[in-house]
Formats: sequence, C-alpha cells, structure tokens
Amino acid sequence: MKKAIVDGLGAMGSSIAENLKSNRFFVTGIDPDPDTIETALIENVINVEGHFDEATVADADVIVLSAHVPYIIEAMELLKKLPVKENAVIVDIGSTKTEIMKHAEGLDNFIGGHPMIGTDQEGIDNRNKDMFIGAPFFLVGKQIVATRASSMLKSLGSIFQLMSAEEHDRLISGISDLPHIVAFAMTDSVDQILPNNQLTWQQRVAGGFKDTTRIANSSPDLWTGILMTNQEQVLTAMDTMIDTLKDYRAAIADGDTKVLNNKLTNAQEIREQVGESKND
Amino acid sequence: MKKAIVDGLGAMGSSIAENLKSNRFFVTGIDPDPDTIETALIENVINVEGHFDEATVADADVIVLSAHVPYIIEAMELLKKLPVKENAVIVDIGSTKTEIMKHAEGLDNFIGGHPMIGTDQEGIDNRNKDMFIGAPFFLVGKQIVATRASSMLKSLGSIFQLMSAEEHDRLISGISDLPHIVAFAMTDSVDQILPNNQLTWQQRVAGGFKDTTRIANSSPDLWTGILMTNQEQVLTAMDTMIDTLKDYRAAIADGDTKVLNNKLTNAQEIREQVGESKND
Repeated sequence: MKKAIVDGLGAMGSSIAENLKSNRFFVTGIDPDPDTIETALIENVINVEGHFDEATVADADVIVLSAHVPYIIEAMELLKKLPVKENAVIVDIGSTKTEIMKHAEGLDNFIGGHPMIGTDQEGIDNRNKDMFIGAPFFLVGKQIVATRASSMLKSLGSIFQLMSAEEHDRLISGISDLPHIVAFAMTDSVDQILPNNQLTWQQRVAGGFKDTTRIANSSPDLWTGILMTNQEQVLTAMDTMIDTLKDYRAAIADGDTKVLNNKLTNAQEIREQVGESKND
Repeated sequence: MKKAIVDGLGAMGSSIAENLKSNRFFVTGIDPDPDTIETALIENVINVEGHFDEATVADADVIVLSAHVPYIIEAMELLKKLPVKENAVIVDIGSTKTEIMKHAEGLDNFIGGHPMIGTDQEGIDNRNKDMFIGAPFFLVGKQIVATRASSMLKSLGSIFQLMSAEEHDRLISGISDLPHIVAFAMTDSVDQILPNNQLTWQQRVAGGFKDTTRIANSSPDLWTGILMTNQEQVLTAMDTMIDTLKDYRAAIADGDTKVLNNKLTNAQEIREQVGESKND
C-alpha cells in the first residue's frame, strides 16, 4: 500500500487526501486545527493524524504541501533535513511558483504544482474529491519528477502539464491575474460612471456585469499578495489590456463600424473556442 | 377581459405573451415566421394570430413591440396612423432607447421599455414566462404612461423603474456596454499575452477567465450596432475604465501594497453588495 502525507486540510488539501485514501493510499493528515483533524478522521478523509517526523516522512511515497504559501516554504525547509524516500514526490499546490521554486533547490524530489481550480469556498467541509477531474494541473520543475508526480496523483483525473516557472507565470498573468484585476477595476469604474445614482445596486445590474465582475468578490489581501508576487508579468499583461482598450476606443470614436466589427469578431471567435467546462 | 397584442414572438416576446395569456389577457400574436405562430397557438402562448389592423389595434389595452429594432420603429410609425385606444399602452423592449425615442413623438401612449434580462438564447422555444420576476424593467418616457405600463404588465413580476433616456443610456453604458467591451478586449489581450502557446485553449483556462469573458461569445454584429448607437456614453465609460486600470498599474509598478490593497478592498466591498440573483 502506498503512503501519502497531506499537509494542510483546506478545501483542496482535504479533497486530495480523500481522493488518495479512496484510491488505496494510506493517508497521514497534518493540520493545525483540531476540528479539521476530527472531521478528517470521522469522515474518512485521512487514515491518521501525523507530523513531519523521521518515521512518517521516510515511509511516504507522496507528500502534498497544501497549506498557505509561508507554511509550504516552512515545510520545504523542514523536509530538506528529513530522510525523504528515494523515489518519493513532494508537490505543492500554491498558486504562485516564483518564490516557492527558490526554495526547491536542495530538495530533489520536489515539483511545483498548481491545479487550476477556481474554488472560492474554503475549508474541509467544501472538499470534493472529484474537483480535479479534467482540470489542468500545472507542474513546474524536472521532467523526471513531473512524470512521477502525475503517475502518483493519477487518480485525481487532472490534465498534468509540465512547464518552466517563467512560462507558468506568464500563463497565470493572462488567465488568472489579468481577469481578477479587470474585474476589480471594472466594479470600481462602473461605480464611478454611476455616481449618486438613485437605483440600488441590486436593481442596476444585468447578467453581463455580474458575470464579468464576479471574481471581484475575492479576498483583497490574497490578491494583493498574488499580484505583487507576479509583478513583472502582471504589468505586461495590463499594458496589453490597456492598449487593446485604446484600440477599441479609437474604432468607436471614429465611428468605424468595420474596424470595430472585425475586433469583436476576432475576440468572439477566440472565446467560442474556449467553451465551457463542467467546473464552471 | 383585457386585450394584448405582442408583435415579435422571440424568446422575450413569447415569454411576455404567455405570461399575459396565463394572467387573463386575450393575446393576439404577430410574427413573420409561420412555425413560430404554429408553436405559439399549439402551446397556448397566444389566443390568436393577428395583424396591426384597425379592429385589432382599436381593441388593445397593451401593445408590446418585441421584434428587432428596425421592426419596432416600423410598427411605431404604423401605429401612429391607427386608432389606438385612449388609455392603452404601447411599450417596446429594445435594448437601445435613443433611436426609438426619436420616433415616439406623436405616439402619446408609447413608453420605451428595457427589461434587463441577459438571455442569449433566441426563439419561442427558449421562452419562460417567469423570466422577468425580480429583474429590473427600465421605462423611458412620461410618468403617466409608465404608471399605466407597470400596472398593465404587473404579472411579469419585474421591478419597473422610470428614467430619462439620458440616464438610461449612461446606466447601460456602465452595466452592459462596458462589461461587453471589456470581455471582448480581454479575450483579445490574453490571446496576445500567450502567443504561440503550446497549450490548447481548453487546457489554459481557469474559472476566472471564463466567467469574465463569457459574454465575449456574443454576436459581434449585434454589439457593433449597440456600441455605436450609444457612442458618447460608451467612450466616457471606456475612459473611466482605462484610467482606473492605469491607477491600479501604478500601484503595482510602485510595489505599493497598501494602495493596491485599498483599491481592491474598495472594489470588493462594492461587488459584495451586488450579490447574485436567481437570473444568473
């Protein structure tokens, strides 16, 4: 029987733990919250509670670091001093990779991970062991460890994709950072466009506005951190967006129906290819 | 028994027709498509098929113009020559009001209408007589006709709101036009940020990107028309958005965590108030 350690039993960590346990892994869970551990034990998310001690680590085939970024880094430093099994895999699931990869040196079995799951629900009660099915799971690091990681975590049903840290950060700036900035900025802008309006927000809004700004109701603290961590790529992405808006603006100001129509058609054709997924 | 005429039995028109019919109106339906009329008759959406002739118009308490904008205008011109009942209400449901209101002069019983329903499904088969419940229904015109219209269409369950054409256009620029432009422009931008990327779109995308760009999969022809019709307000809205993005960019470029956090917090607090509705 293979053995796993899952450090951090939030919504994603507990989902991975439960998935592995129901796929014949013996799962040791780590979490600072006693209620979370109790739930995890009662509801069969983990086999036992544990810690990063020599015996547990020496025995583990896969170690999942699913706490918040500072704790992931703390765990990485700790694991450097412990007897990790030769072919074991250590994988994190933090959403930024730059800082974490700095600490990966000297931890040969480590691979950076980033499952693309847009969950805004936190905690073990919001787990779902099938949440990873069909969703991309980006891996940053060495091919050999990536292959081992995707084999070990096969039961998640993710689409594993290896890339460089730089490629990851550019990708994330486009598909996650920019949409969040834009959602915040548009909520802000619409509030400026409609100042002292007598209508309540609830009456003002149409489906389009709600869809496009939904993720502006995300944690400001979390997003301040994420955006600052990926500063360079975020600025490039924002410049592209501002320039594109200026192009659209020029077409509208000129009353150039043909140019505007071409731009909208181009975007619509791209968006049509994206489609929807069952994660939506 | 009150009498209604519904001209244009698309998704919205047929929803209104069915709603009125099931609320004790005798409904005459008009539509150029024989299949639509057949469905409307068989499925009890309307009582009879009809036309804008003297007898039908003279008898109607409410006339709903729910065809495309050029046909709405055609019908308005036709109705100016027909014997509309003294206290009858003529209401359209087109999404732009500027052009339509130009033709309202000389048609005393007319009020411009704009139900805020974000349906991208077309045709009578996509009707739902409850789709208007709790959704804003903007009215543009005279108070006395607005009062009559909201009384006559009470069974829709909409939240009726009277405003000036200018107020309507500014409102729409913020809650509908800008979100659409931004969705198109962001789809375009992300494609520029990730050129020659080896990942397929399906693998690239996260929930945040999909949510914020979903409405970019709208008809480019339709939106070219809508944006050009509301040109002045759209340009003002775009300027606000571009300036807001520049402010955010400056905070990120300066590494000013506090300023960025304040901006995100402000936007998040606004967005939180908006909430969701069952129409989403």
